[in-house]
Amino acid sequence: MKQSGNPSVSKPFRCILSALWICLLAASLYASEIQTEQWGVFEAAFDGPSTGNPFVEVTLTATFTQNSNRVNVDGFYDGEGVYRIRFSPPTQGLWTYETQSNHPRLAGKRGSLTAAVPSKSNHGPVGVASTFHFAYADGTPYFQIGTTCYAWVHQEDALQEKTLKTLAGAPFNKIRFCVFPKWYSYNHNEPLLYPFEGTPPAAWDFMRFNPEFFRHFEKRIQQLGQMGIEADLILFHPYDKGHWGFDRMTSEADDRYLRYVVARFAAFRNVWWSLANEYDFMKEKTPADWDRFFQIIVSSDPYGRLRSIHNGSLLYNHTQPWVTHVSIQNGSAVTDFGRAILYRDVYYKPIVFDEIKYEGNLPQRWGNLSAQELVLRFWESAIAGTYAGHGETYLDPNDVIWWAKGGILHGQSPARLGFLRKILADGPAGGLEPIDKWQDYPFAGKRGEYYLGYFGRNPLSAWPFELHKAELADGMRFTVDIIDTWNMTITPAEGVFEIRKHDNYLFADKNGRSVSLPGTPYTALRIRRVK
Amino acid sequence: MKQSGNPSVSKPFRCILSALWICLLAASLYASEIQTEQWGVFEAAFDGPSTGNPFVEVTLTATFTQNSNRVNVDGFYDGEGVYRIRFSPPTQGLWTYETQSNHPRLAGKRGSLTAAVPSKSNHGPVGVASTFHFAYADGTPYFQIGTTCYAWVHQEDALQEKTLKTLAGAPFNKIRFCVFPKWYSYNHNEPLLYPFEGTPPAAWDFMRFNPEFFRHFEKRIQQLGQMGIEADLILFHPYDKGHWGFDRMTSEADDRYLRYVVARFAAFRNVWWSLANEYDFMKEKTPADWDRFFQIIVSSDPYGRLRSIHNGSLLYNHTQPWVTHVSIQNGSAVTDFGRAILYRDVYYKPIVFDEIKYEGNLPQRWGNLSAQELVLRFWESAIAGTYAGHGETYLDPNDVIWWAKGGILHGQSPARLGFLRKILADGPAGGLEPIDKWQDYPFAGKRGEYYLGYFGRNPLSAWPFELHKAELADGMRFTVDIIDTWNMTITPAEGVFEIRKHDNYLFADKNGRSVSLPGTPYTALRIRRVK
Repeated sequence: MKQSGNPSVSKPFRCILSALWICLLAASLYASEIQTEQWGVFEAAFDGPSTGNPFVEVTLTATFTQNSNRVNVDGFYDGEGVYRIRFSPPTQGLWTYETQSNHPRLAGKRGSLTAAVPSKSNHGPVGVASTFHFAYADGTPYFQIGTTCYAWVHQEDALQEKTLKTLAGAPFNKIRFCVFPKWYSYNHNEPLLYPFEGTPPAAWDFMRFNPEFFRHFEKRIQQLGQMGIEADLILFHPYDKGHWGFDRMTSEADDRYLRYVVARFAAFRNVWWSLANEYDFMKEKTPADWDRFFQIIVSSDPYGRLRSIHNGSLLYNHTQPWVTHVSIQNGSAVTDFGRAILYRDVYYKPIVFDEIKYEGNLPQRWGNLSAQELVLRFWESAIAGTYAGHGETYLDPNDVIWWAKGGILHGQSPARLGFLRKILADGPAGGLEPIDKWQDYPFAGKRGEYYLGYFGRNPLSAWPFELHKAELADGMRFTVDIIDTWNMTITPAEGVFEIRKHDNYLFADKNGRSVSLPGTPYTALRIRRVK
Repeated sequence: MKQSGNPSVSKPFRCILSALWICLLAASLYASEIQTEQWGVFEAAFDGPSTGNPFVEVTLTATFTQNSNRVNVDGFYDGEGVYRIRFSPPTQGLWTYETQSNHPRLAGKRGSLTAAVPSKSNHGPVGVASTFHFAYADGTPYFQIGTTCYAWVHQEDALQEKTLKTLAGAPFNKIRFCVFPKWYSYNHNEPLLYPFEGTPPAAWDFMRFNPEFFRHFEKRIQQLGQMGIEADLILFHPYDKGHWGFDRMTSEADDRYLRYVVARFAAFRNVWWSLANEYDFMKEKTPADWDRFFQIIVSSDPYGRLRSIHNGSLLYNHTQPWVTHVSIQNGSAVTDFGRAILYRDVYYKPIVFDEIKYEGNLPQRWGNLSAQELVLRFWESAIAGTYAGHGETYLDPNDVIWWAKGGILHGQSPARLGFLRKILADGPAGGLEPIDKWQDYPFAGKRGEYYLGYFGRNPLSAWPFELHKAELADGMRFTVDIIDTWNMTITPAEGVFEIRKHDNYLFADKNGRSVSLPGTPYTALRIRRVK
């Protein structure tokens, strides 16, 4: 039996804990005591049978216990007679476990671990917060600025490393990518590794996974995690068209694949489950298949990682309780905050516009936004209290396009998205809430405290200081920053604005003052209460 | 026993049928044979007990049978010892019935009726058609142009008659109004009749209905029906605040009221059920109450009349299968077709924006749209493939405001809405479908056949003849009408436009011609294929 953890607590402390444990359970059946961080990954490996087909013939699960808290996790076969159990402790302190298996060599294995205080960069997994937003498990807000590189893990290794290097200097805290390789315009190349045993392109034994593929894939997940980037894993997609056939496996193969993926990946705290990209374009699947896939994930992922499904033209019913947040493709919904905002009312969940067209110069209309337009869409989505996703599609002589293969970024939007991310991080911890959603009112924030307004293409030269009445009172005082969202400048407006009731709906500056604006498009205002 | 029907078939034919029936069932238990139209109302009245409290102590139902088709309907107590059963035959031909009751005088009553060919103006009830639209049961399209007079049936009789007269000359084919009276700004008057026995304002016996109230109410429903106007009945509303207490009855009283209303009204084919106006503003109700109310209606309305529920700021989950269409209040969603259209994808049901602010001059922001703006909103909703609702709120010295009390219309929008209704009626029978919904594309219609475009406030002076490619082919020919939606003129553009493929997404006039436009706002284009 082999064990490994993420040692992060000082060795002396660990020794004391180990000693205590040994005293308490002298001669116990528990094999040893090991440390990992809370929300880190504990892994136990066991030798077991390698004959027959262990992927389908051998079951392995484990129950992790801390006081009355029990967590059941699935193990998986990693090839060459090695079986693994992964566990991400949701709380600190001692956890014990015991395995279950249909094979005597794997059943009844016991052990323990101690989940230590997380390291500084470990805030836990991202979850839903305040209905419409996200936060890490330790309460740190998470303001999603996503990007998309569908098939970056399926490119040659040097390109993958380049992608990671680019991401390290980019503003993105989430990336969407596919487990299966992609066969699509600008992306007709074979992957380095395949998820199943067999012969490319389409002679697969769907009953035998290729552990090397998954080991490689999870290495990338972990590297992203170390960079603070969430991995929005796309579990199915239609960009195969039968070339490999991963889009048209049997239900049994689909389900087995999902369980295997969850068993391997769920313990990584930066994993999100995106059931599919353009799920409705997968004509081999039925609506019932997608419902079943959700159920499989709900029942087998003990951590409740974020779950959604991304549409082509037909939206999934995101009101279903197993959908944690809404993942939307729409070519025009975020050109206007008044559009984007409507989804919030419908779903009462975080809204992520993962596909809003891309910055680039493709002939396809989904891939030729200007950088200005893409940045505008992010700002419109932000003041709608929603989130957006980036992608880049500049033609490349070798078809190395960020959106599919990663590599380097050529566009002008990422720097501006980083600027927006910083503005969001400096804003209300609870996220931006529309101030007056029933009206055409381009402000979001926290009523009475913080207002972020955005005027889009409108080149205003002045803005009368007027705010919706909610949570306001005569005499409150505010400062104003004028933000050039394209040139990334923040200019304080002169003086302080003191408000008084103006009419049934608005409070205004008591002297009727306006804020002078530069008369250029893409201007935002940040208004903060002075206390 | 008393019976009445809507005689509409010639008397000789009726005599023959009657004679046949008598031959077949000589000395039968069936009382008689009577005629009504298909989708009309058959009513049977029975004498029964008047002591105790018949509203709660006596049950009465009937089963109507035609071959293997069985329809169960609830009867109701109409006061003074009279019990009634109403039935709207969904098919033509002979129907027999038998009553069930916990009282021997009312149990086992049998009878029959013959449902005849409907009269010319009787198209049956309105139902959902083609997912997003409506049609009458006989297939005739129904293009909803609604209005709202919340409390018109609760005003003095002369005013009610005036409202009906106004409606007779107005373009509306649906009206929203409340069963319960309304206590709200501009509407603080007692109604003529109350739904329960008791003493105004708030000493009610919720276990005893006031039949006179309901007889009056259903007279108004029938009068609307004769005018071809659907009655969108608002069953609960928050505009009471405990003044009468109809907004805070017990669950038992709520449920009994719903069953009584359904038993009385469901047979009228122009009835729609709107569970509430601003349901979420009724703080005495819980989400579970609304779900239960839907279930009561689903189970007790044998005809499946249209069902929805209208929000204040919190949308009901309209994806629930018991919601037939979506009724939305939103102050800004229909200012832009690109907003309105988004709800279609979410719900896959007809979308009716029943409250979009009103034409008027109230100080309240929901009641001071210009006529131009209200008409614009109807057009935006139309090219989004959705429907909108009118209301009028001009201040009146006697507070006789259309939106609440009816009376006469002062505004300039109704004529334009009538013009729109005519345009819709002249368009595709299946309703307007967005041509390219993922894009910012202001055209709806039927691809390849009919296109209705609308440019809103944009004062275009020319429009290059370009149409989205779907269902198009080189050589197709089209005529164009230029529509001034405000001045209600239709001007044919010169010549015929023949198309050829222009790029990946568009077909254009083969000679690159544009359509000259007047350079004024509120312009629409109607483009029809020449065959």
